[in-house]
Amino acid sequence: MSIITLTTDFGEGSHYVAAMKGVVLGINPHVRIVDLSHAIEPQKIRQGAIALAEASPWFPAGTVHVGVVDPGVGTARRLVYARIGDQQYLAPDNGLLSLLAKRQKPTRIIELTNSEFWLPAVSNTFHGRDILAPVAAQLSLGVDPEQLGPITPELLPIDWPEPTRQGNRLEGMILGADSFGNLITNISAGLLTDVKHSEAKIRCGNTTISGLSQTYGDHPLGEAIALIGSGGNLEIALVGGNAAKILGLADGASISIEW
Amino acid sequence: MSIITLTTDFGEGSHYVAAMKGVVLGINPHVRIVDLSHAIEPQKIRQGAIALAEASPWFPAGTVHVGVVDPGVGTARRLVYARIGDQQYLAPDNGLLSLLAKRQKPTRIIELTNSEFWLPAVSNTFHGRDILAPVAAQLSLGVDPEQLGPITPELLPIDWPEPTRQGNRLEGMILGADSFGNLITNISAGLLTDVKHSEAKIRCGNTTISGLSQTYGDHPLGEAIALIGSGGNLEIALVGGNAAKILGLADGASISIEW
Amino acid sequence: MSIITLTTDFGEGSHYVAAMKGVVLGINPHVRIVDLSHAIEPQKIRQGAIALAEASPWFPAGTVHVGVVDPGVGTARRLVYARIGDQQYLAPDNGLLSLLAKRQKPTRIIELTNSEFWLPAVSNTFHGRDILAPVAAQLSLGVDPEQLGPITPELLPIDWPEPTRQGNRLEGMILGADSFGNLITNISAGLLTDVKHSEAKIRCGNTTISGLSQTYGDHPLGEAIALIGSGGNLEIALVGGNAAKILGLADGASISIEW
Repeated sequence: MSIITLTTDFGEGSHYVAAMKGVVLGINPHVRIVDLSHAIEPQKIRQGAIALAEASPWFPAGTVHVGVVDPGVGTARRLVYARIGDQQYLAPDNGLLSLLAKRQKPTRIIELTNSEFWLPAVSNTFHGRDILAPVAAQLSLGVDPEQLGPITPELLPIDWPEPTRQGNRLEGMILGADSFGNLITNISAGLLTDVKHSEAKIRCGNTTISGLSQTYGDHPLGEAIALIGSGGNLEIALVGGNAAKILGLADGASISIEW
Repeated sequence: MSIITLTTDFGEGSHYVAAMKGVVLGINPHVRIVDLSHAIEPQKIRQGAIALAEASPWFPAGTVHVGVVDPGVGTARRLVYARIGDQQYLAPDNGLLSLLAKRQKPTRIIELTNSEFWLPAVSNTFHGRDILAPVAAQLSLGVDPEQLGPITPELLPIDWPEPTRQGNRLEGMILGADSFGNLITNISAGLLTDVKHSEAKIRCGNTTISGLSQTYGDHPLGEAIALIGSGGNLEIALVGGNAAKILGLADGASISIEW
Repeated sequence: MSIITLTTDFGEGSHYVAAMKGVVLGINPHVRIVDLSHAIEPQKIRQGAIALAEASPWFPAGTVHVGVVDPGVGTARRLVYARIGDQQYLAPDNGLLSLLAKRQKPTRIIELTNSEFWLPAVSNTFHGRDILAPVAAQLSLGVDPEQLGPITPELLPIDWPEPTRQGNRLEGMILGADSFGNLITNISAGLLTDVKHSEAKIRCGNTTISGLSQTYGDHPLGEAIALIGSGGNLEIALVGGNAAKILGLADGASISIEW
């Protein structure tokens, strides 16, 4: 039982997603298809990269993850296959896999050039349906990725700002908000192992938070808290509320933690 | 072929839902996963309880329904297994199963304490992924619920206001609106069996409706009507329109029916 | 392995969709269910018809597509089965299948009258759950469509305005926008085979576009372009932006192309 996941910026309820599923099922009617997310904002490659990096590692080894956030569709940008950890990925080579690749070096990267595995007619504007969906279905049937095209050494990297450290102070940034409005930062728990939770002071916009919390529910409603979220990164939350809206913070805002 | 459904307040398109599915499929690659709803508003336990109560009984006997509307995640609130009717449920014990349990007494309730069935590392903030998803997958493989922890006598009840009757008049309330804006009340059809449809008078906010209708399409566009909805409760609808928006009514509003 | 798709105006995350899936799985636990779209706006039959016409032909032959955009539920409107091309459809006979039927004549149309295949209790307001879901599940198990009711000669047609041609000029209209805001027209590529791309001039609202483009990414950000979209029709897009919002255009707007 093989699995294909789909991550796109088509919007929940887009019939373009359904067309991709129809193509997949026409080639492998037994594969299981899982929606990873179709709520990526149009053409927000970084947001798609975060969703893929956070959710895809939870899937069984060998799962094929298809990513379609593809503002350059039909231009010279490449389409690629990548094996990262024990997962497989198919995506435009535009940075969509760059956060995954930064965390763990891909062990095999292949440029998709062998049109034998594509739909017979390829449109200029929907390679998700015409190339990636049929290739994913073929992979799920056991096609060797090396049949898909030539090996290529590297994925296109895009800039993922790293937190900087000065003494007992880390300066990072907010990568985005989840559906609760919790603000996810680029400061991973691994950087905070020597921080005593009660002594941390977190600053972000006009908000100062004293101490790192264990979870959302152990503080009064409406209080801003900082904690290590389920993805393993520092995050800012508002108990029972939406931190992004109420604190007025968004992607790219600076955050510091001092101890 | 066993089935797991998922109901969360993560939002449609949340990659947190995908992470739960990845965990489930890593344990039981053959189980079928169905999204019941991820459009529950953040932390609205009653809304989640209504979705579970309305949709879950339509599934085949033995289906495992996982509910994650969990503002108390990581605090002392319990996680439970419950058998209600011929369905199985996994959820925080915070009222999410209370409407189901009010309609039909659970035949077995178990507190989830046996961490042998959980992911090896449990975060403080995402028990849906780390506890409920793997437990659901184990249940779908045939694990006996009694292995999950000790039997416990009762679920936490939360307040579900009952309609009150005085002579030929019932006073109830609106529980919520569906995606069409139809306003669903807590007055069930069973309470109206001796009401002659043409003689009923329904009052709600500034709106008075004469008679109970059979369906939406048998009245002129824009007319407010009252009818027994597909869930078996009295509802207020606006033909071809959105009653919640146009009549300005929402959860908790009073409604009366007289005959 | 048979497939059922669902297209409704219930909204993404509606638990009414889950109820339909529960009914299907109770009858055929092995069928695969795919969401085609639940983001059709309430009671917008044309929008549902477009989604069905665009996505359903990509599915394997024999797939059963269930459409529920049904403002007339419970009134005299018919429910029908139709075979169009190599696909099967179940829907109210209100125009929801009319765009498909205009493109390719149905080879078999049957009125659903045989209640033996329905749920035992049929509500007045939710025939998707009580009639179409169980009938779809029966079809997926191999029931002959002719058992469902009498053959009927025609589907209800609804008006789909055709583009008009005068010399080297076509006048058409916008049918709707996709989730990127790209405006899809009723002018199919087949009408433009003798048009030199560089010589076309497209007018729509206050916007004039010179030339037909190959794809989105080969023009500067913010530029309005015209191209043949992935569904095979002329469309208007804004590179990196939302044409529908920024150009202020919507369904029904006129568009002309001259060459």
